[in-house]
Amino acid sequence: MIKSDRLLARLDELARIGATPQGGVNRPALSPLDRAARSWLATAAQARGFALYTDALANLFIRRDGRGPDRPPVLIGSHLDSQPSGGRFDGALGTLAAFECLETLEDQGIATDHPVEVVAWTNEEGSRFEPGTMGSKAFAGKAQVEDWLAVMDGSGARFGDELAATLAALPQARPRPIGVPPHAYVELHIEQGQILEAERITIGVVTGVQGARWFNVVVDGEAAHAGTTPLSYRHDALAAAARLLAQLPPLMVADGTARLTCGRLVVEPGSTNVIPGRVVFTIDSRHPEPARLDAIEARIRAMAAAETTARMTVERTLDLAPCRFDPVIVAAIDQAAADLGLSRRHLPSGAFHDALHLAAICPAGMIFVPCRGGISHNEAESIVPDDAIAGTEVLLAVTRQLAGG
Amino acid sequence: MIKSDRLLARLDELARIGATPQGGVNRPALSPLDRAARSWLATAAQARGFALYTDALANLFIRRDGRGPDRPPVLIGSHLDSQPSGGRFDGALGTLAAFECLETLEDQGIATDHPVEVVAWTNEEGSRFEPGTMGSKAFAGKAQVEDWLAVMDGSGARFGDELAATLAALPQARPRPIGVPPHAYVELHIEQGQILEAERITIGVVTGVQGARWFNVVVDGEAAHAGTTPLSYRHDALAAAARLLAQLPPLMVADGTARLTCGRLVVEPGSTNVIPGRVVFTIDSRHPEPARLDAIEARIRAMAAAETTARMTVERTLDLAPCRFDPVIVAAIDQAAADLGLSRRHLPSGAFHDALHLAAICPAGMIFVPCRGGISHNEAESIVPDDAIAGTEVLLAVTRQLAGG
Repeated sequence: MIKSDRLLARLDELARIGATPQGGVNRPALSPLDRAARSWLATAAQARGFALYTDALANLFIRRDGRGPDRPPVLIGSHLDSQPSGGRFDGALGTLAAFECLETLEDQGIATDHPVEVVAWTNEEGSRFEPGTMGSKAFAGKAQVEDWLAVMDGSGARFGDELAATLAALPQARPRPIGVPPHAYVELHIEQGQILEAERITIGVVTGVQGARWFNVVVDGEAAHAGTTPLSYRHDALAAAARLLAQLPPLMVADGTARLTCGRLVVEPGSTNVIPGRVVFTIDSRHPEPARLDAIEARIRAMAAAETTARMTVERTLDLAPCRFDPVIVAAIDQAAADLGLSRRHLPSGAFHDALHLAAICPAGMIFVPCRGGISHNEAESIVPDDAIAGTEVLLAVTRQLAGG
Repeated sequence: MIKSDRLLARLDELARIGATPQGGVNRPALSPLDRAARSWLATAAQARGFALYTDALANLFIRRDGRGPDRPPVLIGSHLDSQPSGGRFDGALGTLAAFECLETLEDQGIATDHPVEVVAWTNEEGSRFEPGTMGSKAFAGKAQVEDWLAVMDGSGARFGDELAATLAALPQARPRPIGVPPHAYVELHIEQGQILEAERITIGVVTGVQGARWFNVVVDGEAAHAGTTPLSYRHDALAAAARLLAQLPPLMVADGTARLTCGRLVVEPGSTNVIPGRVVFTIDSRHPEPARLDAIEARIRAMAAAETTARMTVERTLDLAPCRFDPVIVAAIDQAAADLGLSRRHLPSGAFHDALHLAAICPAGMIFVPCRGGISHNEAESIVPDDAIAGTEVLLAVTRQLAGG
């Protein structure tokens, strides 16, 4: 049994770091607030005598040794960064639940064959520095830190500089090589969807993650006077963008499984009486079927190419193939929930997660718990405490089984 | 005859204040750069012994006395502020041409019955502080400075503070009451349209200004996770905005005289994988017929009301009725161009100008000269020097006629 009061108190404490007036959090990746969250967790880890490690991406590891010190660790965790108007539980629950498991093992003097490590992955969200899941992607060998050093956030801050500052702010974590494959990886997370709540189920046994592709679309038109320029002379970048964006919901009507979103759009020069000369916007496309991801991308490119009043350039900035989690991990989660007498169902993940990358280098899986109304990436994100506790108990049971002993 | 080299040199000098790398200017209303432009012009005025005045809106007046010191002045001028990616001639040409006329009267010792005053109106563009034409609107008694003191720019700076700083930066201008009606008002401006260039005509004799209405549209949806939220659960503020914006070009196809533009649009929270919870955008609507302005506004409000996935609130932020310029001024401009042997045609103004407000309190009119490709509100704005000189000669002739003597 975990100490549920301790877990809930820690969730409250972490939510204060970057708290927003509406009850959410704004803790951008590698920001001073992210560093504060890391330091706070590191202090708690040191108080328990756990060792701290970090790597080239500033992924943070908290280690409790096993009987076999050279065995690969069972890795459990999530991320500490948030969306700009994010919720209190996205990432935070999985990280603190994993730490609660580590403390419970220590409290109860449970020896494991494999070491157990808690991880907080760097920049899962991708809302400050694109793309998301940088830390786990590099850990899985799919990219290198050098690929992203020059990436800038909206204010012109460089990823490389903020990464270095974050590493410098946690001197107590010892550097180690990135990406040594763990024995297994398990992540607890809020569902960020409506299924578990609608079906009144406590534990989601996640079978895999749908694929995601992100696009950056640049629309080059011509700035001109709003009062004098007739339609036939206009090269209105925003009118062209709106035409394309208005076609995304019908695409979702045609394919009920597709998820298409423009979350970011910037207009230049951005003056009421000036026809926009340039618009830059993003598209986030998701689908569990690779063939449908291809078809949707082709459709987006065709719409862009068909625009005659402005030039549209479509660049793919992220490509995450759909994945299926290891059947052994899926079965272990299912069994643990059953042993604890918890309602459960198998379901795919609509959101992508760091576990997607880990699945490429070790057996990986995820546990979902419900969040109210499926609302996430929103300050109103909320969970039932009992669900958080139940999810953590499942994580503990699976961790013990995987770590052996 | 004016001194054309002096005029062209001054246009070059002014273009350096707020110059952009692409050859345009960015001189926001009441900014330090606007203050620098005012100081520069005031210094030139003092060097010629002209008196300087200002009023509650920081409109700047440069006065050359007439024989009858108590007679109302003939007012000529334009504005010194620019769009964020503006051109070198929008406003600048009319202000410096008016100053050139004043200097020419002085050079040649021409006495006039009425005083002649050059004016630089405050915040014509409205791109930093909305609405535009604040200075002339208040001068015409249609608004008061108190109406706008709390208006903020995009960075949170208050209009009232920036106005006070601008007045303080020009202590040599003596304060005087706002809005004493002038004898007449004449403004030279680039056409900002394609008609004069296409017809190879030098002088546009402006018959009036089409009406303009500005709207601020707030779209309230709900931020949610882009990967997990099905279409039926989405309240996507940007998808709703795009649906409305995609209908504006068809409205312009249906009414070839209408001009409809969304020049500004901001998405919140603005993250690639978050469904936008809130979008705020502007619509600039223009038409010479009041009934059509009404019909277009009704259509916009109906589209907003018909949106079912998000709540759209439409607020009208500017309402400029169409105006016709005084036939006496129109005839005087026509005759002056004819006397100078210049090609000319009558035409309405597609853009609004400070002259629109002046027309409510005195006989007013405008002279247009061509600009290349009709391009304006754009750093690429450009004119033929001979056209600028011709327009200034027409302004001088009309000013002399109206001022008498």
